[in-house]
Parts: sequence; structure tokens; C-alpha cells
Amino acid sequence: MLGSLLFIESFFLLLSAIVSLLYQDQAFYSLLIPSAIAFLLGGFAWYKTSKAPKSLGKREGYLIVSLVWVVFSIFGSLPFMISGEIPGFTDAFFETMSGFTTTGASILNNIEAMPKGLLFWRSITQWMGGMGMIVMSLAILPMLGIGGMELFVAEVPGPTTDKLHPRVRQTAKRLWGIYTAFTAMEIILLMFGGMNFFDAINHSFTTMATGGYSTKQASIAGETPYIQYVISLFMLIAGVNFTLSYFALKFKFKKVFSNEEFRWYISFVFAFTVALTAIVYFRNYTDGLEKAFRDSLFQVISIITTTGYVTADYLEWGTFGIMLIFTMMFLGGSAGSTGGGIKIVRVIILFKNSLLEFKRLLHPRAVIPVRLNHKAVNQMIVTNVLAFIVFYILTFVAGSIIMAALGLDLESSMGSVIACLGNIGPGIGSVGPVVNFAHIPDVGKWILSFLMLMGRLELFTVMIIFTPVFWKR
Amino acid sequence: MLGSLLFIESFFLLLSAIVSLLYQDQAFYSLLIPSAIAFLLGGFAWYKTSKAPKSLGKREGYLIVSLVWVVFSIFGSLPFMISGEIPGFTDAFFETMSGFTTTGASILNNIEAMPKGLLFWRSITQWMGGMGMIVMSLAILPMLGIGGMELFVAEVPGPTTDKLHPRVRQTAKRLWGIYTAFTAMEIILLMFGGMNFFDAINHSFTTMATGGYSTKQASIAGETPYIQYVISLFMLIAGVNFTLSYFALKFKFKKVFSNEEFRWYISFVFAFTVALTAIVYFRNYTDGLEKAFRDSLFQVISIITTTGYVTADYLEWGTFGIMLIFTMMFLGGSAGSTGGGIKIVRVIILFKNSLLEFKRLLHPRAVIPVRLNHKAVNQMIVTNVLAFIVFYILTFVAGSIIMAALGLDLESSMGSVIACLGNIGPGIGSVGPVVNFAHIPDVGKWILSFLMLMGRLELFTVMIIFTPVFWKR
Repeated sequence: MLGSLLFIESFFLLLSAIVSLLYQDQAFYSLLIPSAIAFLLGGFAWYKTSKAPKSLGKREGYLIVSLVWVVFSIFGSLPFMISGEIPGFTDAFFETMSGFTTTGASILNNIEAMPKGLLFWRSITQWMGGMGMIVMSLAILPMLGIGGMELFVAEVPGPTTDKLHPRVRQTAKRLWGIYTAFTAMEIILLMFGGMNFFDAINHSFTTMATGGYSTKQASIAGETPYIQYVISLFMLIAGVNFTLSYFALKFKFKKVFSNEEFRWYISFVFAFTVALTAIVYFRNYTDGLEKAFRDSLFQVISIITTTGYVTADYLEWGTFGIMLIFTMMFLGGSAGSTGGGIKIVRVIILFKNSLLEFKRLLHPRAVIPVRLNHKAVNQMIVTNVLAFIVFYILTFVAGSIIMAALGLDLESSMGSVIACLGNIGPGIGSVGPVVNFAHIPDVGKWILSFLMLMGRLELFTVMIIFTPVFWKR
Repeated sequence: MLGSLLFIESFFLLLSAIVSLLYQDQAFYSLLIPSAIAFLLGGFAWYKTSKAPKSLGKREGYLIVSLVWVVFSIFGSLPFMISGEIPGFTDAFFETMSGFTTTGASILNNIEAMPKGLLFWRSITQWMGGMGMIVMSLAILPMLGIGGMELFVAEVPGPTTDKLHPRVRQTAKRLWGIYTAFTAMEIILLMFGGMNFFDAINHSFTTMATGGYSTKQASIAGETPYIQYVISLFMLIAGVNFTLSYFALKFKFKKVFSNEEFRWYISFVFAFTVALTAIVYFRNYTDGLEKAFRDSLFQVISIITTTGYVTADYLEWGTFGIMLIFTMMFLGGSAGSTGGGIKIVRVIILFKNSLLEFKRLLHPRAVIPVRLNHKAVNQMIVTNVLAFIVFYILTFVAGSIIMAALGLDLESSMGSVIACLGNIGPGIGSVGPVVNFAHIPDVGKWILSFLMLMGRLELFTVMIIFTPVFWKR
């Protein structure tokens, strides 16, 4: 099954090879060879799979999904290595995993010098990873019908379970439909603002995926205000539950605006933007209020959706500003969006449950459930959400301690870990918005790559594989 | 009731005044006057209370306990202000609240220059606060018998509920009995090692309270290895659940060693000591392995029990060492000990519940409870523990953001907040082990004082007063 999924990767590698050919950039064979290998392995696996049993349990679901991401990242790093653009396997794997997981943390020091085909491949990894390889496969490959639900749950494990269609295949199709539609819209709007076709496609891919890879070393800092606002808008959309976007596209706005997670998401963006605009404006009012607002809005949306694009170096916004940014890094987008992080809905459940604890202290015998969208949330889900957040924080702490042990300073340790675990990209300290991850020791890059995967698959899917209970019986 | 509790404070102020008289140190009247005021107000309140209704609800319990600590701190700061040793109310209140909550964060720059009577009072505040004013009152004042349980629960809110005696008054008496016995033992052992009587009493008071106020500016750094080991031992004891100490004093060691929290507590101390000894030794091996071990052991126990004594500047132990120290700051002592922080048992429940989540993912329909000491833990308690930890971390984050807004750097913001919220004393950054809190802006000192109180009363008791549900009906 793993192998047969390689067909998809093979296809996108081929697409990148064609781009390479069009731009005459010498990376053609570096992309074609991995594509061919993936195709052959995929064919071989397909042939084998047709004879294998077609049932799929929970355990197999978790295992396959986790492994798919690793296998895709290994194949995906081949073009960088073959072309010699990123010669080391560690760096190439880091860059590719950072792509697929839509983290956007890069080790490249001169992005513009990269062959266009490879840049395109780099953006494609994010676009594929944004909606998820399994979700894509479910939509395209008919053979995944059996056991599809187990795979879907393992790749999209959020606490909200509203599906777009009772059949998982139809849900996956609609999700990819909306995703593609928004990407197309953004391409058009960016080109309308004067961006060339190549940059428009790449940025649209990495915006909708909340990935953050840019074709420019300066990220979005050099673009016009119009472009920056357009990208802000689409980052904002990408951070919304795609189920809600589906309703919005059908003009069912009431369903969107009555959704609690959506309301909180917009409120967070609003509150943080106002606070940061004030901070930025008073630190440097010569640039004017509009620039302060634009930079703040852009960075707030970029961080909260875990995209990681940069228009301003927020590390120059003072300790208070950095603390706000750092706090946002833990929030993340909505469940069912392409954003990473803890996710807004979990934060809401966390808050509500914690506040109810006061009521429970005064009325110890009453059963007082958390209510979300006017419905009582199952206590099992609440416990799961709390456990998730605990693991998230523990992983953050453990990761930070390890990075500190590798010689990073305190801020960079915490910054690099949350930037990767939250699939954000830039962090704080020496991995801030205007620097990159090239200087991290190799061991650190492997750990951070693993954290990206854990973050993208929302911890449990990856972690469960390392528990004894998973392998029992 | 609040007023009648002032009798106790009046008594200890009088005791300090007598110490002042014995040492001829000019602080006699500064201590006598507040004692007299507290006595008169106490008498007046006693007279009034005897006519008031004697029933006490949950809400009254939370309110009284929270207010007692504030009122005691206000009265307790009078001697510092009247004597002119700490002229400002903000500083005096900070120092006193830091005492009662056994935090040990100080604003004093020249501790040796303080009159002995005031130093004694400073240590007494910690000793009173260590076991708790309410617990003391329950043991001494017969009038608190009615509603005593509500007060006890509000002041000792840990997740473990094993009482030493079915009657709360007897429990309180035994707790204070053990507490006093250990304090006496430590005084004897310190004097045996050559410490003078005054220093021995003061250090014993603040050790058993896990407070950390010393009569020396250099804390415990200048003492002999023997003294440092003795203090390590008693800090370790003070961080154990006093119920277990009670069993230990009755030679029921099996009950102690089979206790899960105790085993984890000792394991944490062991693991962190080994790690830090290695770090300290390799950073500076000329001082020898014994010194590295002694400094590490002392600082590990001091931080994990939230005492806050200092024998070595752990900020010089490198980023990795600091990260380990910083992590320990969140652990805290055992439930039912005088230590602060999150408390070991909560961390255990948190870990166990989180690990069980994997089992629950694979068996969604099974009810899988957390087990502690071979018994299933009520799911309500698990939820409460998780909510506690969430509030703890949120309070830490919110506090750090506010301190950053007041102009502190990132490390000092986080360091000052966890040092106060965890009732530790020294933090990291500019409030590290060899500096103090004098430079914090006034607003910051008030916020930190509030955090100390929240930490000491384990969040809910203080926070619940600020919820609408508390004031309803």
C-alpha cells in the first residue's frame, strides 16, 4: 500500500521535471530519475497489493500514515541531492520533511539561485502535505476504499468529526476540490497584482497549504501591499476548517458565522493584530499606521495559521511583542484546516473545561459537560484534548532541553522546537524570521524533522507506534 | 473569623519582639506595636464572632482562606515599615507575602544588617505559612471546629485525600506535631555542626517550610559541607507528604516506600542530581566530584521542593543545566508537603492519563481509568488535575507576558513568574540565585505577590473568588 501511494509522488515529481524542462534549468534529470524510481516501485507494489488481504485495522492505519510521510520525504529529498543543490542527506531530508509537513523551515541561504524546477517541487511538497497525502490518495486511488476511514482518521485526527459526506471517499474529493479552487483563485489574484505566473503558482501552493516556502529569500517582505493583503486573506482562509469553507462557497454563511471555533479564530486574529499594531506603531511611527497594521496583520495570520511567511522581522518588536508572537505559535489554525499547532478548537475545549472546574468545585455531585456549538462534548473527547495538549507541551519541553543540550541558547532552543512542532517555520532566537536552520547541528535537524512529523500528524498517530500497547497481541 | 485568626499572628509577632529584646536590636517596638494592634482587633473580632452564626459553606471557606493570607501579609509587613528597614509598602508587602507563601523571593540587599528580631519574624512568616495558617488555627483554636473541613479543603486542596484522622482537628494537630518535631531535630543537627542557635532556628524554620529565607546574604553557600548535607536532608523531608512522614516516624516504612508519589519524588531527585553532577563536574572538574555532587544535590532538592536556598549559581551551569533547573521548577514537592509547584502526584496522574490515551485510541469503547497506588482514580479528579495544570501553565504564560510588558527580558520574565508562582524564590535571568527582586518595577511586585498567593493556595482557592459562578445566588 505504501508503495502504491508512490504513484502520486511520482506524478508530482514528473510535473516538476516538466517545469524544469520549460525553464531550461538543468534540474530536469534530477527530478525525472526519482519520478521514474517512484513509478517503478509503485507499480511493483500495486501488483503485489492486488493479491494482499484488503482489510485494514486501526493499528495498520496509524502505521501506514506515519510511514507514508517518512517514505515520501525520503524520495522527495532525492532531487535536491542528485542535483547537488543540497548535497547532504540530512539537509535534503530536513528541507523535504519541512515541505511535506508544511513547516517551511529552510536550510537554504540563497533561494533565488535554485533551479526553478526544484523550487516548484519544493512548493509542491507543501501543497501535497497541506491537505494530506492520504486524503489525496483517498480521492484519487479507488483501491484505498477499504480501510480508508482508518487512514483518514489517522491523518486527520482532530476533535471535530463533521464529515462533508458520509462516504470518506466523497469527503476527500470535496476537500481537494475546495483546496484546488482556492489555490486557483489565489493564483489569479496574485497575477492580477503583477506577480509573474511562476511566483504566483508557488506562493499560492504554499499559502493554501499554510506552508510558507517562498521563491524569494526575503519571503513576502519585498512584495507590494496589495500582494501582502491578498496573501493575508488566503492564509486566513487556509486556517479555517475546510468544511466551513465548503459551506461558505455554497453561500451558507450562517453556518460559518455561528461556528464557535471560527468566531474564536477571528477574535484571536483581531485581538493580536490590534495589540501588535499598537506596539509596532509606537516603536517606529515614522513608517505610518498602515504599515504597522499591515505588518502586524500579516505576521499574526502567518503565525497563527502556522504558515510562516515573513514581511517584517518580529524579533525587533520588543520583548512584549515577541512574547505575543511566541504565544500565538502554540495556538495554530482551526481543526480541519491545513494549519498546524494545537488548533483553536482544542484551546477552546481546554478553556471551557478549565472554567467549568470552578463550577464543579462548588457542585461536586453535578455532571457538568463542556458545550461546543450548543452541544455537549463527550467527556472522552475532552480527556483526549487535554492529553493532547499535555503531550504537546511535554514534547515542546523535552525538545527544547535536547536542543539546549546540542548547544543552542535558550530562546533558539524553544524557538526551533515550537517552529517545527507547530509546523510554523520561523521561530525566535537564532531561527528567527530573517535567518534559517542551516546552522543547527545535524542531530538537531533530525530531531526537528521528527518533531515536524509529530506536529503534522497531531502527535498520537506517530507516538502510538512507539508504545508497547500498539505492538501487543 | 478573619479577625480572630489575628490572635495567632499577634502571638508570633510578640515572640519576635521578645527575640528583638534579647538581642537589643532596636526593632522591639516595631514588632510590639503590630502585635498589640493584631491582639486588639483579634479580641474585638472574637467578641463579635461568638454571636455570629456558626455554619460555614464552601464559598465562605474559599473566601476566608484567601483573605486570611492577604490580611496576615498586610499586618506582617508592618514591622518592616515601622522600623524603616523596608520603608515602602510595596516592598514590605512583597517580602511578607513571599514569607507567608514560603516563596523566599527577597528584595533585601544586605540581609546581615537587619535587626535580629525582624530576621526572626521573617523566618517565622515562612514557618507559619509552610504548614498553613488555617491548619495551625484548626489545631489551636477550638472555635474553628465548625466549618473546619471547608477551610481545610480550601487551604490543602491537593488531589490526595488521605487524612491522618477522621476528625480534621486531630489531623491538623498531628500535622503540626510532626512539623514541629522535624524543625526541632534540624535545629539540633545544625547546632551540632557548629551553627549558632539563632541561625539554626531561623534556617530550620525556613527549611521545613520549604521557604528559603536565610539569615545570610549568601544563603547557604558559605556553610560547611556537613551543614549543606543536613539542610539537603531536611528539605527533602519537607518535600514529602507529611502523612508519609507520620508513618515513617511510627516505623511503618513499607507504607512509605510503596507510595507511588514518594517513589517518583525520590527518582526525580536522583535523576536530576546525576545529570547535573555530570554537567557541573565536566564544566569545572578542578573543584572535585564531591563538590559537584553536593552542589547539584543541594540545588536539585532546593528547587524541586521549592525551597530556594542557594549554594551555587546554577545560571553558570550552561544552557542545558539551566533548562534542567527550569524544568524542575514546574514539578514541585509532594502533595501534602510544604513544597509548592504543580506537585509530583499531579505530574504522575498527568503522565499516566496521557499514556492511557493511546490505549483508549485503540479500544475506544473500553473505560480505562488511571491507577495510583493500585487504586482507580476517579475521573473527576483526573479532570481536575488536568485543569489545574492547564491553569498553572496559562497563569505562567500570562504572567510572563505581563512581566515582559513591564520591560523585563524574556528569561527574567519567565524566571520571575515561575519563581513566585511555584513559591520557589530564585528564578532565572535577572532574578537568578545570586541576585534578588529589588529591581522589579512596583506593579510587577504586586503581580508577583498575587502569583505567590495563587501558587501557595493551589490556584483554584484564589481564582474561584473571581468567577461569576462564585457570587451567584
